[in-house]
Amino acid sequence: MSDNPIALIVLAAGQGSRMQSDLPKVVHRLGGVPLVGHALAAGRAVEPERVVVVAGHGAEMVRKAIGKLDPEAAIALQEEQLGTGHAVLQALPLLDGFEGRVIVLYGDTPFIGEDTLLALSSHPADVVVLGFEAADPGRYGRLVVGPEGLERIVEYKDADAATRAIRLVNSGVLAADASLLRALLPQLGNDNAAGEYYLTDIPALARAEGRRVEVVTCDEAETLGINTREELAAAEAAFQSRARARALEDGVTLSDPATVWFALDTVIGRDAVIGQNVVFGPGVTVESGAEILPFCHLEGCHVSSGATVGPFARLRPGAELGGDVHVGNFVEIKNSVLDEGVKVGHLTYLGDAQIGAGTNIGAGTVTCNYDGVGKHKTLIGANAFIGSDTMLVAPVRVGDRAMTGSGSVITEDVPDDALALGRARQVTKPGLATRLMQALRQKKGQ
Amino acid sequence: MSDNPIALIVLAAGQGSRMQSDLPKVVHRLGGVPLVGHALAAGRAVEPERVVVVAGHGAEMVRKAIGKLDPEAAIALQEEQLGTGHAVLQALPLLDGFEGRVIVLYGDTPFIGEDTLLALSSHPADVVVLGFEAADPGRYGRLVVGPEGLERIVEYKDADAATRAIRLVNSGVLAADASLLRALLPQLGNDNAAGEYYLTDIPALARAEGRRVEVVTCDEAETLGINTREELAAAEAAFQSRARARALEDGVTLSDPATVWFALDTVIGRDAVIGQNVVFGPGVTVESGAEILPFCHLEGCHVSSGATVGPFARLRPGAELGGDVHVGNFVEIKNSVLDEGVKVGHLTYLGDAQIGAGTNIGAGTVTCNYDGVGKHKTLIGANAFIGSDTMLVAPVRVGDRAMTGSGSVITEDVPDDALALGRARQVTKPGLATRLMQALRQKKGQ
Amino acid sequence: MSDNPIALIVLAAGQGSRMQSDLPKVVHRLGGVPLVGHALAAGRAVEPERVVVVAGHGAEMVRKAIGKLDPEAAIALQEEQLGTGHAVLQALPLLDGFEGRVIVLYGDTPFIGEDTLLALSSHPADVVVLGFEAADPGRYGRLVVGPEGLERIVEYKDADAATRAIRLVNSGVLAADASLLRALLPQLGNDNAAGEYYLTDIPALARAEGRRVEVVTCDEAETLGINTREELAAAEAAFQSRARARALEDGVTLSDPATVWFALDTVIGRDAVIGQNVVFGPGVTVESGAEILPFCHLEGCHVSSGATVGPFARLRPGAELGGDVHVGNFVEIKNSVLDEGVKVGHLTYLGDAQIGAGTNIGAGTVTCNYDGVGKHKTLIGANAFIGSDTMLVAPVRVGDRAMTGSGSVITEDVPDDALALGRARQVTKPGLATRLMQALRQKKGQ
Repeated sequence: MSDNPIALIVLAAGQGSRMQSDLPKVVHRLGGVPLVGHALAAGRAVEPERVVVVAGHGAEMVRKAIGKLDPEAAIALQEEQLGTGHAVLQALPLLDGFEGRVIVLYGDTPFIGEDTLLALSSHPADVVVLGFEAADPGRYGRLVVGPEGLERIVEYKDADAATRAIRLVNSGVLAADASLLRALLPQLGNDNAAGEYYLTDIPALARAEGRRVEVVTCDEAETLGINTREELAAAEAAFQSRARARALEDGVTLSDPATVWFALDTVIGRDAVIGQNVVFGPGVTVESGAEILPFCHLEGCHVSSGATVGPFARLRPGAELGGDVHVGNFVEIKNSVLDEGVKVGHLTYLGDAQIGAGTNIGAGTVTCNYDGVGKHKTLIGANAFIGSDTMLVAPVRVGDRAMTGSGSVITEDVPDDALALGRARQVTKPGLATRLMQALRQKKGQ
Repeated sequence: MSDNPIALIVLAAGQGSRMQSDLPKVVHRLGGVPLVGHALAAGRAVEPERVVVVAGHGAEMVRKAIGKLDPEAAIALQEEQLGTGHAVLQALPLLDGFEGRVIVLYGDTPFIGEDTLLALSSHPADVVVLGFEAADPGRYGRLVVGPEGLERIVEYKDADAATRAIRLVNSGVLAADASLLRALLPQLGNDNAAGEYYLTDIPALARAEGRRVEVVTCDEAETLGINTREELAAAEAAFQSRARARALEDGVTLSDPATVWFALDTVIGRDAVIGQNVVFGPGVTVESGAEILPFCHLEGCHVSSGATVGPFARLRPGAELGGDVHVGNFVEIKNSVLDEGVKVGHLTYLGDAQIGAGTNIGAGTVTCNYDGVGKHKTLIGANAFIGSDTMLVAPVRVGDRAMTGSGSVITEDVPDDALALGRARQVTKPGLATRLMQALRQKKGQ
Repeated sequence: MSDNPIALIVLAAGQGSRMQSDLPKVVHRLGGVPLVGHALAAGRAVEPERVVVVAGHGAEMVRKAIGKLDPEAAIALQEEQLGTGHAVLQALPLLDGFEGRVIVLYGDTPFIGEDTLLALSSHPADVVVLGFEAADPGRYGRLVVGPEGLERIVEYKDADAATRAIRLVNSGVLAADASLLRALLPQLGNDNAAGEYYLTDIPALARAEGRRVEVVTCDEAETLGINTREELAAAEAAFQSRARARALEDGVTLSDPATVWFALDTVIGRDAVIGQNVVFGPGVTVESGAEILPFCHLEGCHVSSGATVGPFARLRPGAELGGDVHVGNFVEIKNSVLDEGVKVGHLTYLGDAQIGAGTNIGAGTVTCNYDGVGKHKTLIGANAFIGSDTMLVAPVRVGDRAMTGSGSVITEDVPDDALALGRARQVTKPGLATRLMQALRQKKGQ
C-alpha cells in the first residue's frame, strides 16, 4: 500500500432528519461507538496518511466525537449542504500537498469491509466506483459497464427500461487520484432539481477527459446506510449478530449469544466464558479463560486470565484486573489496578485505587476518592485484609499484610503488618430493644 | 362525542381455567398492568360517563385491581357464569338512569383500538356489532350482511357451506342503546347446549323489532383474546413490539429494542437514550435527552432532561429526578425528590428523602427511614456533601452546604454550613495484623 | 424395569476439536450443567444399577464434573481414541459381574428422551439400535430393516442409490445384553480408513450369531449431537425454549419467556411469577406463588411460597427463603436460612447466617463471615431489628427481639431483647463544612 499513499474523506455533514433527533446522525451509536467511527475504523485497513471528516449539522458534536475516535483526523466544515460533490470540495484544502489516492466514504454507512477498501485503494484505474449487485435495485443509480470500464452512471429517473434492468448499482463510495479530484470537482454543475453538486458526476467528467474509470464490487450488506432509528436498530442487530458469530468461532463461550453486546473493538480470548446479559462498552479486553458472569457492564477495562467477574459487576474505564482476580456482585471498579489474586466479593466501590496481589477487600468497602473538590488515590499493599465496610479516605495508603477492622474509617496511612481500627466499642443494653419498640408502637398508637 | 353519552361494560368474570392459575384471568399482567386495564385504558378514548366491570371468578382480586386502575368504575358481580348476555344483564342495574350508548368490551381482549371504539360509539345504528375479516375464520360466528345491515350471526355449527365461506366474523364486542339493551336482554333464551344466555342473540332480537343493526370492522389483531399463558406471552410480545416501534418513531434511542420493556403508560421523550435491559413498570416518564443506562428497573417515577440513571439502578414509586441528576450503580431511590444536579453515584438507598440542588451523596449512604414501626423523612439541603457510608437516621435534616464525615451515623439535625461527624478516631497497632493472622492460622491448624 | 437390570455406558472421551476449546467437549455447559450431565440425567429414567462414563481427552476435568453430577458413576479411561467400539470395551471391566442390558449413550448428545430410554431398556431383542427418520438423511448410516428386524447398517459411502433413499438412519445409540457385548466387542475389527473399532459393527456380528437385532425409533431432535459452539448455542436455545414452554404449561407466569434461563433441574410452582432477565443456575426450587422480580441470579437455593426476590438479587447455594420472606435489591444471600417473614430489603450480604422469623435486616448490613482464614456463622433470632449498616462480625449471635443501632459493628453476642450499639456519638461543628470546602478549593486553585 505504501507505493500509493491513501487519504480518506468521510462525509458526515447530514442532519439525518428522519432520525427524529436533535443530534447529527453520525454521532448516534452503533456497536458502542458513534456511527462515523465504523467508517474510520474500517479505513485503518488501508493505512491512510490523511483522514478528513466533513462535518455540517451538529458540527461541534461531530468534532468532539472524532476527537475521541481519531485525534489525528482533520475536520472540514460544510456550512451549507449542497451535495456530496460540494462536501468533498470542502475537504480538499485539508488535503493540501497530498498526492495519491483519495477514498470517499460516508459516516452513515458503517459496514464497508476492509477487503473492499483494499480493492479501492489498489485498483489501477484513475477513478474507481464502488458498486454492488442489488437484490432489489429500486431507485439506485445503475452502473453501465462496457469493455472499457464504467461507461456511465444513470440515475433511476433518467433510465430506460433496459437500463433499469441492470442490477449493478452505485453505492456512492468512490476512489480517485487526488490531483484528478482537484481538477474535476470545480467543474461539477448543480443543474438539477435539488440544485446540488453530485460526486456521482465525477466518473463522467473523468471519462470525458479520457481517464480510466472502473467499478469494484462488494456485498450489498456492506453498503447499508442508516436513515431512521429503525434502520439503526437493524444495523445494530446485524453488527451484534456478526460479532457474536465471530466470538463463537474464536472459541469464546457465550451462554446466550443474543444477550451479549459487543463494541466495535471488544477483544475476548478463547475459552473465556461470557454469561447472559453482558454489555461491553468500548475498550474492553478479556483474556483467555476469564469468566464474566451474567449481568455485567464493562467499559475501557482489562480482565486477565483466570479472573471471574460478576454477576452484577461494573468495570469502568481504567479497571485492570490481574490474573485470578475475583470481582463479585454489586461491585464497581473504576480507574484501579488489582494485582493477581485480589478478591473483591461484594457491594464495593473501588475508584482510583491500586491493590497489591493477594489482598482481600471486605464487603461494603468504599474508596472515598472524592472530597467534594478533587479526586485522590488509595494505595493498598499485597496480602492485606480490608475488613467489611471500611471507608478508605483518600489519599491514603495501607501497607502489605496490613489489616483494617470492619466498620473502620481509615484516614491515616496504615504501615505494613499493622492493624488499623476506627470504630467505637460495642455497648449492649439489656432489655432496651423491647422497651424502645414498645415506646415506638405506643407513640404510633399501635 | 358528548351528544351521545357512552357507558362501557367490561366483562371480566371468567376464570380462565386454561391459564393454569388460581388468579382470575384478567388480573394477569400485560404491559405491566392487569389485562383488564387495557380495555379500560382504550375505553377512555370515548370519554365514558359510566364504566361497569362485571367480575365473577376471583371477584375480590378483580375489584382490587380495578380500584387501582379506575377508582370510579363500578363493579357488578356475576356469581354464576351463565353466558355473556347474563353478564351484561348483571351490569344493567349499575347503569340505572343512564341513557345513551353502551359498549360491551372484554377484559381478556386487550388490543381493541381507539379508532374502533370511536366508530362503535358514533355509529347511528341501534345495535353495532364489531366484526373482522378473519385470515382463518375457523369456528367464529359468521356475519351475514345484507342491504339493510347485519341480517344475522350464524354460529359455525349451524352454518351451511356458503355461510362458512364468509370471512367476516363476530368479535363479540357490541354497542347498543341502553334502553334497547334493557328491553332485549330479559328476552334472551338459554335453549342451547351450554344452557347459557348469549349476547350474540341480541342483534337478531333487535332486527325482529325492526331496529337497525350494523357491522363496524376492525383489524383482526385488535380482537386477540387471551386464554392460555402462551397466548398471554404472545400478546405481551405483540404489545412490546408495538411500543418499541412507536418509541423509535418518536425519536427515542433504544440500544437494543428487544430488551426494553414498556408499560401501558410509559412516556419517553425524543433523544432520550435507553440502554439494553431496561424494565419500565407503570407510571414512568422520562424526559427528552435523559439517559437510562443498561440494567435498570423503573416504576412510578420521573426522570428529567439531562439526567443519567444506571447501570444497575432502581427507581421506585415516587422517585422524582430533576434535571442533570446522576443516579449511578447499585442505587435504589424510593419516594424521594432529587433536585437539579444531585449526584448519587454508588451503592445507596434513598427512601422518603428530599435532596436539594447540587448535593453530592457519597457511596454507601443509607436513609434509615424505618425504625421498626413507622417510616420517617430525611431532608437534605442544597450543595451539601454527604460522606460515604453516612447513615441518616430519620427523621433528620441536613442543611445547605453542610457536610457529613464518611462513616458517620447522623441522628441529629445538621445546620447549614456545619460539619457533622459520628465516628471513632483511627487507632493503628503496629505488627498486630500479622500476629492476628498467624494466631488465626495456628488455631485452624494451617 | 427391575426384571432386567440396566447399566449405562456414556461415551465422553472425545476432544471436540471443532469447539475451539482447551476443555473436553462434554464439560461445556448446557442448561447450567456440563453437557454429559444431560445423558446421565435422562438415564435415571431407567434406574440403572451401574453407570460408567468413558473419559479420554481432559479426563481429569470430566472425572471432576462426573463426581458432582453422579458420584456413584464409575470412570473408565480411554487413553487412545480408537473408536466407539474400543471406548465401550474400556468400560466393560467396570461392569464386571453385571448381567443385564447395557445402553450406550453419548456425552455430547443431550436430548435422548426418557421414553426412548425406556423403550431401549425393555425391548426383548438381543441388540437394539436407536434409529430415526431423518429429514435429510445425508451421510448417516442407513438402517436396512427386514421381516426379521434390522438386517444391516450401511454406511453412506458403501450405499447404492436404493439404500441411500432410505430415511431411517442410525443414531449411534445402542442397547445390548452385557454378556453379548462381552462376547462380541473383542471380535470387532479396525480394517477401515480411520483404523478404528466401530460399535456400529456389533449388530452385524450379533446377526451372524443368530441373535435378534431390532430398531427402536425416536424423534430426530433427540439425536442432536454437538460439535461446535454454534451447535452448542443452538442446543441451549432449544433446551431453553422447551423449558420455557413447559413452565408456561405448568402455570408459571413468565413476563418475557425469552429472558428466563432455566437449568436442567429447575423446579417452579404454579402461579409463581418470574420477571424479565432471571437466570436459574442448578439446584433451584421456587414454590407456588413466589415472585422473582427482574434481574435476579439464583443457584442452589429454595424460595418458599409468598416470598419476593429482587430486582437485582442474588441467591447463592444454600440460601433457603421461608414463606413471605422479602429479599430486595442489591442483596446477596449465601448458605443462609431465612425463616418466615424475614425482610432484607437493600444492599446486604448475608453469608453463613441463620435468621429467625419476622426479623428485619437494615440496608447495608454485612455478615463478616470471613476472618482471612476461616468462615464463621451468624445467628440472629426472631423478630430482631438489625439497624442499617450493621457489621455482624462472626461468629456472633443476636437474640430474639434484639436490636442493633445503625452503623454498629457487632463483635459480641447480643442477648434477647437487648439493644447493642457500637458507634461514636455525633459531633456537629458549625460552619466547618463551608470553611473546609473553601480550603480545599483554594488548595486546588479553584
